[in-house]
Amino acid sequence: MLAVPAIIAGCKEIVLCTPPAKDGSIHPAILYTANQVGITKVYKAGGSQAIGAMAFGTETIPQVYKIFGPGNQFVTIAKQLVNISGTAIDMPAGPSEVLVYADSSANPDFVAADLLSQAEHGVDSQVILVSIDEAKIDEVNAAVTEQLKALPRADIAKKALDNSCSVFFKDKDEAIEFTNNYAAEHLILASDDADDIATQIHTAGSVFIGHLTPESAGDYASGTNHTLPTNAYARMYSGVSLDAFIKKITFQRITAEGIKNLGPHVERMAAAEQLDAHKNAVTVRLKSLLS
Amino acid sequence: MLAVPAIIAGCKEIVLCTPPAKDGSIHPAILYTANQVGITKVYKAGGSQAIGAMAFGTETIPQVYKIFGPGNQFVTIAKQLVNISGTAIDMPAGPSEVLVYADSSANPDFVAADLLSQAEHGVDSQVILVSIDEAKIDEVNAAVTEQLKALPRADIAKKALDNSCSVFFKDKDEAIEFTNNYAAEHLILASDDADDIATQIHTAGSVFIGHLTPESAGDYASGTNHTLPTNAYARMYSGVSLDAFIKKITFQRITAEGIKNLGPHVERMAAAEQLDAHKNAVTVRLKSLLS
Repeated sequence: MLAVPAIIAGCKEIVLCTPPAKDGSIHPAILYTANQVGITKVYKAGGSQAIGAMAFGTETIPQVYKIFGPGNQFVTIAKQLVNISGTAIDMPAGPSEVLVYADSSANPDFVAADLLSQAEHGVDSQVILVSIDEAKIDEVNAAVTEQLKALPRADIAKKALDNSCSVFFKDKDEAIEFTNNYAAEHLILASDDADDIATQIHTAGSVFIGHLTPESAGDYASGTNHTLPTNAYARMYSGVSLDAFIKKITFQRITAEGIKNLGPHVERMAAAEQLDAHKNAVTVRLKSLLS
Repeated sequence: MLAVPAIIAGCKEIVLCTPPAKDGSIHPAILYTANQVGITKVYKAGGSQAIGAMAFGTETIPQVYKIFGPGNQFVTIAKQLVNISGTAIDMPAGPSEVLVYADSSANPDFVAADLLSQAEHGVDSQVILVSIDEAKIDEVNAAVTEQLKALPRADIAKKALDNSCSVFFKDKDEAIEFTNNYAAEHLILASDDADDIATQIHTAGSVFIGHLTPESAGDYASGTNHTLPTNAYARMYSGVSLDAFIKKITFQRITAEGIKNLGPHVERMAAAEQLDAHKNAVTVRLKSLLS
């Protein structure tokens, strides 16, 4: 998910750090995928130590310009610290979260499955149900209780649900305003009006429109990047995309006619700031053109 | 320079903090410009205290999502600290710098004026001359000495020049490689071959092509943004542009046909990660479509 835009962007050196299992092995699915997308440098390192190694370089791990990818709280703070000392990072990342907006048209089994697929991620996952239909909230919570029974990771999901809540709004506009303010990493719009509601969403990581668009499709198959801003960072950060791997340079060339036109304005503004050398850089050129 | 892209991007609230003079006034040119571009909220505050106020909000200054603009070393570290606690920033900023690549076709007076217009910014400005023509370096340095005499800010410029240097390369490719590695905030290509050299530049903040394109035109009139990455940050950061004020949200809607096609892949991948709830979010939907 991160390597593909990096390769499209033309990054010359891509390094993958991944924590090995206790026996020192790396899961074959990771190695297979790395090979598929063209990553040839894989290091058995994870956690904050991997962040430090990539930021400063070691005898074996090369120093990189920018570090991407989510991690636990130690990884997150390590990324923020190396960012201060000169390595770029994709974004601060925190525990994962989902907000499901479900109205009377929502299928409680679908919504429950979506809430649980977020809750099973980790005990610190946050799962929010927003509804303008009080009865629907009860139906969804009943379905959650039912589906939870069959889950291997029920213990984790249960703890995550303890930190989570259902919020009832009488007014649709208020529900949408809350949804925007919450700035969810994943926002599912379980409503027949999902297309219309989507046009009113201005803050979220990624939006899943309609009854047949589970968040897990975003994780694996729908094609959107799933390295997304958590913890309300969607207010000012975007998910990772090709842009995150591109740096832009501005180029300018001024012609003789151009400097004759622009020059006097530059001279006047530089003089107003008492920056005589700035002014002079134009003056010497204008003089030379006149002579 | 910062407000225009913010307004184009549709930012709803734009706040300007600017340090007042000792008598409490703000320079009329700043107020005039703010008014011209449509900024209506101007606060008399500068330095790290302004950064803190905007990051956390005060009784008078509103909390903002992202802080833009250069400042001294205290402002820079304040921006980095509030960034850790949840406010986005444009980029880390340091002292300003220019690299002039000048070959035998360069006009020594132009190059000297360009070097001095950077040097007069502050005693910590860095000014680098790169040349493949040893005699040209001497000519430029002679012109610098001559022009320096007439400058009101000669003391500042002189101190900046003490930290600066001229670098001679026998080989053009090596000179260009050094230039890319230096990653200058401002790069001036004072050469008849400037267009060709520009195509080989992959790391710089902003590039000024040809003999008639002084950096001071970029500051005031050429139209490129001059909030640029310093201190070699051009290796991984871009200058401020419209993009810096835009956050992107991904939207996805899966149809019945889509979930039938994608669903089985999601189920398989979720199962491989032992995330049964993720898998179930697809399974409940597929079942419902079949029934």
